[in-house]
Amino acid sequence: MANTDVWLESLITKTPQEGRALAILMARKTIAAIQTDPEKRKQLRAAYAEDTVQLISSAQVVAIEFQTIAQANNFWK
Amino acid sequence: MANTDVWLESLITKTPQEGRALAILMARKTIAAIQTDPEKRKQLRAAYAEDTVQLISSAQVVAIEFQTIAQANNFWK
Amino acid sequence: MANTDVWLESLITKTPQEGRALAILMARKTIAAIQTDPEKRKQLRAAYAEDTVQLISSAQVVAIEFQTIAQANNFWK
Amino acid sequence: MANTDVWLESLITKTPQEGRALAILMARKTIAAIQTDPEKRKQLRAAYAEDTVQLISSAQVVAIEFQTIAQANNFWK
Amino acid sequence: MANTDVWLESLITKTPQEGRALAILMARKTIAAIQTDPEKRKQLRAAYAEDTVQLISSAQVVAIEFQTIAQANNFWK
Amino acid sequence: MANTDVWLESLITKTPQEGRALAILMARKTIAAIQTDPEKRKQLRAAYAEDTVQLISSAQVVAIEFQTIAQANNFWK
Repeated sequence: MANTDVWLESLITKTPQEGRALAILMARKTIAAIQTDPEKRKQLRAAYAEDTVQLISSAQVVAIEFQTIAQANNFWK
Repeated sequence: MANTDVWLESLITKTPQEGRALAILMARKTIAAIQTDPEKRKQLRAAYAEDTVQLISSAQVVAIEFQTIAQANNFWK
Repeated sequence: MANTDVWLESLITKTPQEGRALAILMARKTIAAIQTDPEKRKQLRAAYAEDTVQLISSAQVVAIEFQTIAQANNFWK
Repeated sequence: MANTDVWLESLITKTPQEGRALAILMARKTIAAIQTDPEKRKQLRAAYAEDTVQLISSAQVVAIEFQTIAQANNFWK
Repeated sequence: MANTDVWLESLITKTPQEGRALAILMARKTIAAIQTDPEKRKQLRAAYAEDTVQLISSAQVVAIEFQTIAQANNFWK
Repeated sequence: MANTDVWLESLITKTPQEGRALAILMARKTIAAIQTDPEKRKQLRAAYAEDTVQLISSAQVVAIEFQTIAQANNFWK
């Protein structure tokens, strides 16, 4: 079962940029946890990638997730 | 009475991924505290799972809840 | 006068779950401070409890308030 | 000139509840800094106090301002 | 070129109220960085100052910027 | 491949203003990661730069990203 797969073993990443990628993954995994049908997610994604309101909202989710990841990594200092 | 059941004994989880699951649970429990009719929640959920705007908004709530949980767990370091 | 009643003596709660209840109370008290007519609030509440967009927005407010409460309680550790 | 009046001397308040009142004041002062016409603000306020979407959005602003105030006051511990 | 002018030398302000003013400036500078035409910004500003939804959204941005500024100033304690 | 280019080596910037520029870059890179077609992004950008609702939403994303960057730089103190 996909939902029980381990996909988040740690918040630690080697670089800030890998932290960005993890933030995007975390946001996507939340959406996958609510909308569990992969076919529907595919359709929905096509729609929101062309809607700036939704792109900006998505960027906000990623910014919040990244804040957590950056703190976990002590800002890669 | 469902609302007085203890469902949140601690913010501590074994793994980051369990922290994600707790964040989703916390978001759902808030909605259940406001919309107390389970039948209505079921109907509402079917609707928002197909609306990307609402999926992204939900992901934002989860991101904020997770930030709190991650701090509580000292980022599972 | 209701608005001058003391309703928030402390951010400290015994358990995380009581912290959730306080977060919901804080959100409601803000709305009561802006919309001071209790009859109107009652009508408005009936409406938003059936609108997922507003339920999710409310959950976001609660998540932010809870973050503050959790920090105040040192995450109940 | 109203905008140069000192209205925020400190973030410190005696009680958490006074902190809530300050959070609401801060949110209102921002809106007054953008919409500088008091007559227009009065009209606008009548409208948003009857719109739950806007009431919830306002509650979110207050929650963020309060988070800052609570930290400034070391959570009134 | 206006965009390369130094407008943010420091997050430190003498008083909390100057911190509020800086928060509003920071929000405005972001918008100016995205919508670079000053004539268009002037038109847009007239519109959003009469729309409570947008006023509240703006207040939210200011609240977040102020949180950062308040932390930088150790809450002016 | 553009997406694997290193664009974020560090969260450290020399000045607060460079931190603002990085915050804007981070927000844009998230949108580019979701909407990968540069032609479409160009069209979308023209639209949202004239819509105050979206400009304010974008400013909110930048405010959150900047909060992270400011913490990473210990507020340039």
